[in-house]
Order: sequence, then C-alpha cells, then structure tokens
Amino acid sequence: MNLLVVGSVALDSIFTPFGETADALGGSAVYFSVAGALLNPVQVVGVVGEDYPFDELERLAPRGIDWSGVERTAGESFRWKGKYSYDLQSRETLETRLGVFADFQPKLPDSARDAEFLFLGNIDPELQLSVLEQVRRPRLVACDTMNYWIQSRKPALMELLSRVDILMVNDGEARELSGDWNIHRAGQWILRQGPKRLVIKQGEYGALLMDAERTFYAPAFPLEEVFDPTGAGDAFAGGFMAYLARTGTVDEKSLRRAMIYGATMGSFAVAQFGIRGFDGLTREAVNQRVGAFQSLTQFEMIEPGT
Amino acid sequence: MNLLVVGSVALDSIFTPFGETADALGGSAVYFSVAGALLNPVQVVGVVGEDYPFDELERLAPRGIDWSGVERTAGESFRWKGKYSYDLQSRETLETRLGVFADFQPKLPDSARDAEFLFLGNIDPELQLSVLEQVRRPRLVACDTMNYWIQSRKPALMELLSRVDILMVNDGEARELSGDWNIHRAGQWILRQGPKRLVIKQGEYGALLMDAERTFYAPAFPLEEVFDPTGAGDAFAGGFMAYLARTGTVDEKSLRRAMIYGATMGSFAVAQFGIRGFDGLTREAVNQRVGAFQSLTQFEMIEPGT
Repeated sequence: MNLLVVGSVALDSIFTPFGETADALGGSAVYFSVAGALLNPVQVVGVVGEDYPFDELERLAPRGIDWSGVERTAGESFRWKGKYSYDLQSRETLETRLGVFADFQPKLPDSARDAEFLFLGNIDPELQLSVLEQVRRPRLVACDTMNYWIQSRKPALMELLSRVDILMVNDGEARELSGDWNIHRAGQWILRQGPKRLVIKQGEYGALLMDAERTFYAPAFPLEEVFDPTGAGDAFAGGFMAYLARTGTVDEKSLRRAMIYGATMGSFAVAQFGIRGFDGLTREAVNQRVGAFQSLTQFEMIEPGT
Repeated sequence: MNLLVVGSVALDSIFTPFGETADALGGSAVYFSVAGALLNPVQVVGVVGEDYPFDELERLAPRGIDWSGVERTAGESFRWKGKYSYDLQSRETLETRLGVFADFQPKLPDSARDAEFLFLGNIDPELQLSVLEQVRRPRLVACDTMNYWIQSRKPALMELLSRVDILMVNDGEARELSGDWNIHRAGQWILRQGPKRLVIKQGEYGALLMDAERTFYAPAFPLEEVFDPTGAGDAFAGGFMAYLARTGTVDEKSLRRAMIYGATMGSFAVAQFGIRGFDGLTREAVNQRVGAFQSLTQFEMIEPGT
C-alpha cells in the first residue's frame, strides 16, 4: 500500500565520542524512508535548498524511495549540528539553520494525495495539518512532534492530535505534552486527546505501544556497540509504518509486529554513523533480527500454583 | 527448598511527594522476605538493636518467614532516612546510622547452614563471604551489592563474584563495577569475573537477565500510581529467588519465569509505602499479575517474507 512521509531532509553535522560527520544526509524523512523502504516503497514530501547533494538522494531511489515530492528551491538546506555526551545518553544542539525549511509550504504531487499510510514527521503542526488535508483518504495517519512544537504551537498540535490515529513520541515529549511525569498516566492523558494509539520511544530501554486498555512493550535490541543515536526514532517510525503498509492490516497483532520492525530498524540506525547502518542491509538481515527479538522477551506460561 | 537471605533489617524514614514514614520496617532482608514468602518459606539472618519493634517482625512470621536467625543485641538498630524527588526518579540519603550493623558478624543457626538457595543481600562483601562459607552445600547463590562496596571493598567483592552464580544489581552499579557505560558490554565484563548469570535492574524500565550468550528482558509492570520505590529491588530479588526455590529448578525456562515473579513483586512493593504493598496480598493475586505480564511482551512469530 502507498506510504507517504513528510518531514525534514537535512544535512547533519554530528559529533560523538567515536567520530564526527559534516553535512551528511539526515533529517526525519530521510531516516524514515531508508529504513521503511526495506519493507515497502516510500514517497517523500519535503524541501531542500539548491546546495543539497540531490544526487546522493537519487542514488537511494533504487531502494524504493520516491523523492519526486521533495521540492528543490533557492536558498540553503536545513542543517542541524549536534554533539553527544560520552555515553550517548544526552545530546546538545550546537546549531540549527532552518534555511528553506522556514518558508516550506508542502504541496503534495497528485500521486502522493492517494497515500493510504501517512506519517507526519516532526515539523510544525500547522504544516502537518496542511499535509493531512491534502491526502484524500488515508487509512492510517501517525505523527511525531517535539518539545519545541509542544511549547510554541500547542493549539495546532492539539487539533492535529484529534485527527491522527497514532502519536509517536519519546518519553520526555509524552511527559511534557501531558504535564505528568508518570509515563502510563501521561499516555492515558494523550489517548484522551484523540489518538487511538500511542507509541512512546524510550531509547535504549525500548518502546511502548499503548491504547486505552493495553500496553505492549518492545525491548531495544541489545547492542554492545552504539555509534550514533541520531535518527533512531525516525528509523523506528519508518520500520513501524512500512510494516503496516506492507501487510495492509492495522490490528493489534500487526501493530505489535510493527513495533518489533520499528525496534529492529532503530537498532540498525544506531550501529553506524548517519544512515550508513542501512547500507547494504537486506530484508533477510532485517527478518533475522526481527526473529531474534522473540527470544528476548519470550517466557512460557506459568500454570497457577507452580 | 530452603531459602536463606542475609541482609539488613532496618528502620526506614522515607519522604516522598505523597507522604512520609518514620521508623517503618525496612531493610533488604525484610523486603526480600515479605515478597519471597508469598512463594516459598524464607529464613532470615541479620541483626537488630534492642530498640527494634521485634513484635512487628514476629507478626509477619505466620506468612512463612523464620526470623530466628536475626540476632538481637545491645545498641541501636540500623536506620536509613531518604527523600525522593517529585518524580521518584532519584533519591537523596539524608542519614544512615549503622548502629548494631557496624559490628555485625553473621553466625548462622544450624538450620540455616543447610540452605539450598542463598541470597546475599547488600552488605559488606566480607560479611557476604563469611555467610557463604557457613552454608554447607548451596545449590544456587545470588548476591547484591552497591556503589559503596564497589568503591571501598573491591578486592573482597571480586572474590565474592568469583564464587556466586548470579549477581543482581541495578544499571548504575553494573556500569560502575565494570567501568563501561554500555550496559551490554558492562554485563559481559561482569560475567567474565565469575557469575554465570547477571540480573540488571532498570527500575521503571524493567530488568535484564544475561548470560554469556543470551539476554532476556522482563518489563516493569505498567503502573499509573507509584508511591514509594524503596525496596523494589529487594522485593524483586525475593520473588526471583523464592520462585526458583519453590520449583527447585534453575534452567533457562525457570530463570525467565523467576524474572517475571521478581518484576511482579517489585510492582507490588512500589504501590504502597514501605512493605504495606504486601499486606493481605495472596498468591492468587501474584499469579494473576504474573499472567498479565504475558500480554505485555507477547507477539506472534513472523514468517519470513511477510
């Protein structure tokens, strides 16, 4: 089924204790699509400046990514510069240059307006709403957001929440949005604002899928080597949405599997700098890691009294 | 099978955003045994001063806790006073008074020397070694420790590690002990020091069971109300060890189930102040919660290619 993502297409400069990159391909829509395209074709809507190495994006097209919805316009591309702490647990934004992203008004090509699965990456909620309105009959809409929009665009964000099926955020964002430090109460508060389901990403601890009645816990894959956490959440979203688009079903069973595909893509994202963790990655390797998740949490039913 | 714990029997004064207690029953051996005794009788070795409300301990005896190994001696009981942050994520120790614990030399009653399952709670590693030497033929030995001993008693602690089957610590302790911030590398380092298995407790995120080849992840039970995290780790240890002692088997299957019993006991511990979370708790209620853990992590096998 058609899968569409709108989000940032950026140039990232990242400093970690293990090395650094300058002006590397990045942004939420890029991580989402390199991960998701391993499972299902992905259409991208976004904007880049004339300085963007568009040929590098084009080189990813054979993997199943349609970049035709990425506008190329005069000006500078979106740039993000960040530095991670020695243990990769926290990061500091050194510089954010919005560039052409500042005046971005997403215009969906006609083909994109037929998307059935839609992911509204972390951009201004007003723009997320504008994209949502341009898609004719989406079957499943999920969105991300961040503290910046929670603080500066609360009304638009609340309007968006009332219109999406799934919100996907990290635990700090869920706490800030709800004003509640208890993550389970925070989740239930968010669910009352509209989304039928909520995904809360908790980094190295895994991710929760919640609805009003149930919680599902997907652990993070145990990794002895982590190089760059950038994009892990977007890769998670890509795996999650692409698995659902691939199967075309959105029931509890497929959502749980989608969580495991998301966690799998997150684990590949952090194992290398930038999007390199997806270089040469095959669907077989993805399925093998998905299979390995089983033994991570599996235990046999205990009969009462034993 | 016989289950023995050595640890602190203390009086806790705890401040949380939801209330406070003064001189309430506490200490690692107390939390361990009130949780563990729901599954298997527990013998306790420890020490209290003449000021200890020993009748309150005696009142717990009908639950299956044998306090005869707790020495009553002249002096003041061990006291701990602590204060939690608004979100219960961190705590500050306001006061520690070792009292009679300072000169504690554990002497096991003869009945305790036949213990088959032994838990060496968080006390001086020299004392943990002394207890270990007094037990004739333990089938399974697990121990806890803390930053204070890692810093001040490293040689004794390393000697202890070479002689136990399972080390059970929290993630901060695993990092400090190994000098590695990556929890999976830290775990493998610890496993090379002796223990065949390692349990790493991660609070609200759950707990890991590791051996040289495998990792098992037990999530924390989702709780919208948490009142007092004190003793959660000791209650986890009590549930874990008592389940193993009850079944008498220590294979991978039973260890995974034991992790779930541990997580279950931890969830009851934090739901009330002090040990009150175990008041009136039945084995049926415990088994019911254990059963609820299944749906928390269960997902169906994914066939390759779907």
